[in-house]
Amino acid sequence: GFSQPVLAQESERVLRDLEIRIPSLPHYSFGRGLGLTTPDSTYQVNIRFRMQNRATFQTFSDRDDSVEAVVRRLRLRFDGFVGDPRFLYAIQLSFSPGDVGAIQPGENINIIRDAVFYYRPDAHWSFGFGQTKLPGNRQRVNSSGALQLTDRSVNNAAFTIDRDYGVFANYGREDQNRFSYNLRTAISTGDGRNYTRNPDTDLAYTARLELMPLGAFLKNGTMFEGDLAREQTPKLLLGGTVHYNMGAKRAQGQLGSDTSAKRDLRVIHLDAMLKYQGWALMAAWMSRQTDDPVIALPDGDTGAVRETAYLVGTGYDLQLSYLFPSDYELIARYSSHNPEKEVRPFFRPREQFSAGITRYVWEHALKLQLELTHDRFPRTDFADAREGTYVRFQIEIGI
Amino acid sequence: GFSQPVLAQESERVLRDLEIRIPSLPHYSFGRGLGLTTPDSTYQVNIRFRMQNRATFQTFSDRDDSVEAVVRRLRLRFDGFVGDPRFLYAIQLSFSPGDVGAIQPGENINIIRDAVFYYRPDAHWSFGFGQTKLPGNRQRVNSSGALQLTDRSVNNAAFTIDRDYGVFANYGREDQNRFSYNLRTAISTGDGRNYTRNPDTDLAYTARLELMPLGAFLKNGTMFEGDLAREQTPKLLLGGTVHYNMGAKRAQGQLGSDTSAKRDLRVIHLDAMLKYQGWALMAAWMSRQTDDPVIALPDGDTGAVRETAYLVGTGYDLQLSYLFPSDYELIARYSSHNPEKEVRPFFRPREQFSAGITRYVWEHALKLQLELTHDRFPRTDFADAREGTYVRFQIEIGI
Amino acid sequence: GFSQPVLAQESERVLRDLEIRIPSLPHYSFGRGLGLTTPDSTYQVNIRFRMQNRATFQTFSDRDDSVEAVVRRLRLRFDGFVGDPRFLYAIQLSFSPGDVGAIQPGENINIIRDAVFYYRPDAHWSFGFGQTKLPGNRQRVNSSGALQLTDRSVNNAAFTIDRDYGVFANYGREDQNRFSYNLRTAISTGDGRNYTRNPDTDLAYTARLELMPLGAFLKNGTMFEGDLAREQTPKLLLGGTVHYNMGAKRAQGQLGSDTSAKRDLRVIHLDAMLKYQGWALMAAWMSRQTDDPVIALPDGDTGAVRETAYLVGTGYDLQLSYLFPSDYELIARYSSHNPEKEVRPFFRPREQFSAGITRYVWEHALKLQLELTHDRFPRTDFADAREGTYVRFQIEIGI
Repeated sequence: GFSQPVLAQESERVLRDLEIRIPSLPHYSFGRGLGLTTPDSTYQVNIRFRMQNRATFQTFSDRDDSVEAVVRRLRLRFDGFVGDPRFLYAIQLSFSPGDVGAIQPGENINIIRDAVFYYRPDAHWSFGFGQTKLPGNRQRVNSSGALQLTDRSVNNAAFTIDRDYGVFANYGREDQNRFSYNLRTAISTGDGRNYTRNPDTDLAYTARLELMPLGAFLKNGTMFEGDLAREQTPKLLLGGTVHYNMGAKRAQGQLGSDTSAKRDLRVIHLDAMLKYQGWALMAAWMSRQTDDPVIALPDGDTGAVRETAYLVGTGYDLQLSYLFPSDYELIARYSSHNPEKEVRPFFRPREQFSAGITRYVWEHALKLQLELTHDRFPRTDFADAREGTYVRFQIEIGI
Repeated sequence: GFSQPVLAQESERVLRDLEIRIPSLPHYSFGRGLGLTTPDSTYQVNIRFRMQNRATFQTFSDRDDSVEAVVRRLRLRFDGFVGDPRFLYAIQLSFSPGDVGAIQPGENINIIRDAVFYYRPDAHWSFGFGQTKLPGNRQRVNSSGALQLTDRSVNNAAFTIDRDYGVFANYGREDQNRFSYNLRTAISTGDGRNYTRNPDTDLAYTARLELMPLGAFLKNGTMFEGDLAREQTPKLLLGGTVHYNMGAKRAQGQLGSDTSAKRDLRVIHLDAMLKYQGWALMAAWMSRQTDDPVIALPDGDTGAVRETAYLVGTGYDLQLSYLFPSDYELIARYSSHNPEKEVRPFFRPREQFSAGITRYVWEHALKLQLELTHDRFPRTDFADAREGTYVRFQIEIGI
Repeated sequence: GFSQPVLAQESERVLRDLEIRIPSLPHYSFGRGLGLTTPDSTYQVNIRFRMQNRATFQTFSDRDDSVEAVVRRLRLRFDGFVGDPRFLYAIQLSFSPGDVGAIQPGENINIIRDAVFYYRPDAHWSFGFGQTKLPGNRQRVNSSGALQLTDRSVNNAAFTIDRDYGVFANYGREDQNRFSYNLRTAISTGDGRNYTRNPDTDLAYTARLELMPLGAFLKNGTMFEGDLAREQTPKLLLGGTVHYNMGAKRAQGQLGSDTSAKRDLRVIHLDAMLKYQGWALMAAWMSRQTDDPVIALPDGDTGAVRETAYLVGTGYDLQLSYLFPSDYELIARYSSHNPEKEVRPFFRPREQFSAGITRYVWEHALKLQLELTHDRFPRTDFADAREGTYVRFQIEIGI
């Protein structure tokens, strides 16, 4: 006969086997959250959440010191499929002040981030319909939960094409051992998230090409910052986005306040990412241009003229990091942000330098971040120089 | 001995049997979503969501063409029981711009659609307390996820009694083979969803009777549009609602802007539905009446008088559809909307004709809808005629 | 051989055993809701919700009678751990009008109640970072779903230190058979939930000590009102909170409208709770003080001066209840609320007496509450006396 330990082991094995074979059990996977699938595969729901809590001490040359402590991001996500694994959906809701923005009368509530239907006929093609991120540069397309520093760069904040509502078509070929690429395209309203005021027929057109000449990154490594996968061979991504937003009504196209005018915005994003043995290097160049970016708004009552402007200009970011085997990471970033001369009464040039230490407890799902950032606004014809520094501590937690 | 296939089959059978008998496994059912029940039946939670993504091209005689592309509906639902299967709850939250409405200072956030407690002592009686739909006409009571066209009729938009907060008492007897009926009653605030301004003691009283002389519909077929159940014998529903909203403060009772006045609104809804072998016919007549519907609002500062009005009048809808065995459906609807003469400076008469094609992928849970609608506002003493057309594509997905 | 019943019993036993040993099965526990844990303990999610539906008939000496019927509270909660059971999170979202408040332009949406990360190195220590309740008095710290009457006392509404954003450090030793205690401390912004306007470096400091000289309460009985655990020996809690909110910008510190000024607020809360054999007695004394609580706001245009004030003063509550073995409970509460003389033009003294009957169906998770409250505002130098009464029915349901 069997001895006790052998029996226990056997029983454990049977149990594991059983667990795998009961299809209605919840399933858990890293980066997909908590999953539930019907035994007959008629639908699947993955539930995820994440939150970012932070506290920032700021000292600026021209204002009082301050502590800003707030839930920066709080998100709920539901994704999965309905009817057939080719018919997918992705929903993301956001609730924090920084996600939703201050309340403005007459505007829509800005809780929905993603609400998109996908049809994925095979591993290469996918077609989307709804609201989600446009294929902008790598840092923007990555989840804000997969960043190394506590926020994206100032250029990303200024020149992003963000989320939009429209149709999306993507084609990709990824293989870790050979030349890989992704092509992503979209036709969208150009007005951004949850925007329904003044609909017109002016649309926005976006295309992005990503090349990975040394093969696809390990563990979907294009989707997060930092070389957490510790690539054993160098991996390179070269990406470029062109975006043409016809008749844009907001200062930054998908974001910003209404300009009461229309302009055709031309946006170019170029970026590169290199990862190797814990090192990660990112570089990005961004540009938004339009003709006549300054808008004069005559006041209805007094006839006085108020001016506003589209945020046009260029900028670049450089970001370098090394992940120690102890799961501590050091990060440095430099950004140079240059609005065009004619809009400098409204938008200031700016240089930003950040240094960060991140401790990954459970990859990007649980991490502690400490960041020191120095911000410099040089003197312009319209304003004095100013500069300042902040120190920020942040905890990201999610599933 | 058994051959291998027989053994595998046997093992499969044992697994299925096991699955059924482990009560804490999640359960999945069509139309109830993802369910979880405690082994001792102390509580149950069913989690559901759905979203409607659409894009509409509009061309109207008196304005520029436009494309409206937006998440029209996005809902989360939780229902189940607590303590005992007789004590039920139903919660529905909505997050899309069209669900919540534009932000208005001083108003409440309009995210909660349903939040209601039910006591169901047996299969016939149920008693509710909280916020949910009043028993209006069939099209209104059906989920917006169970419609054939992309929205309810213009009469429904105008004359609905919508959702309200109050107490509800329902009694029904349904049997597919004999005369069936439902009686639904409610006493409610009459002010609609999430409304807390200016509370008073004026309440609203509603009663609805539904007769199914040829027996109850297959698969709860009263609850969705289109004969997706392909009734093998003709099934007929005759319904009537009377609603008396005392001291109503909003232009449409449960909806609309504040009138700064009070009127007793009398609402009647009559409707009929016939389904047979893929055909479905719906007819509805609606009416809202009150005495002195026009309100003069003297401006506090200038003394000038601004007028507003309650939306009173009548309208009818006719809707016909045929579902092909291929799960394609053709739908046509005609609506005639007639505000009373005295309120026509505020609300225009209107005719609307819609034609739609729907492809059901997974019944109403995943469907693709294409709709062409023509809208005609005839000339009145106060405004010129105008007309327009829209084409709309919509995907509904949910569990 | 075995007879049939014995076999069935055996099979039942095997099934139960299996259920316990499949770690990815959902788990259900009272007060924690629906739980899901990865088999390798990398994360856990507990999902909970609750809602409070009520209807109130009010009659006041100086206004018309009214019925207020509304979803008072509707909450979703997610808690659990990520990476390791020592790294915990707790998220609570609220959606009802009473939770979120009326919409105010320029303010943040107030949906997030709790969003906090905890590190719990052992059973005694815990450290938090994020937004959650400050350690105020017992009634405030208890969930609003664990109250005996339909709301907290008027003193709690006025003098609460509520929720705030900051760091939290707690140490406790609880044992049902010996002297037990908890110490809770926090350093927070002092500005309350989801507040990001005018950040400064003025923080708030809070400490609370709770002594349980007769041992810890049964079933975490400090966390809910009423002796639902029917303590077999008397159990006593003595608690005290001191809170110093530097440079407070809102009339009640964490709550209230902006004062356009800064004051250092000194808050003291003292409370006691005794439970024994179905009886529960609670007493609380609260105080908020500051120097120069009245603020003069000169109007920018006209130069006219408008005054506002910080809500300073003291108050006490006495609350007594008895739970019958039939799960019916009788509750009585008296509150005396006394703003300081100098702020009485803004805040009125008040006495409130409430009597309630609660029927617990499933402890605090499903209960029916009936409450009669009499409110008396004595005459002051600035306003006539007024008084009134309300009767309220409430159902609380949740998991």
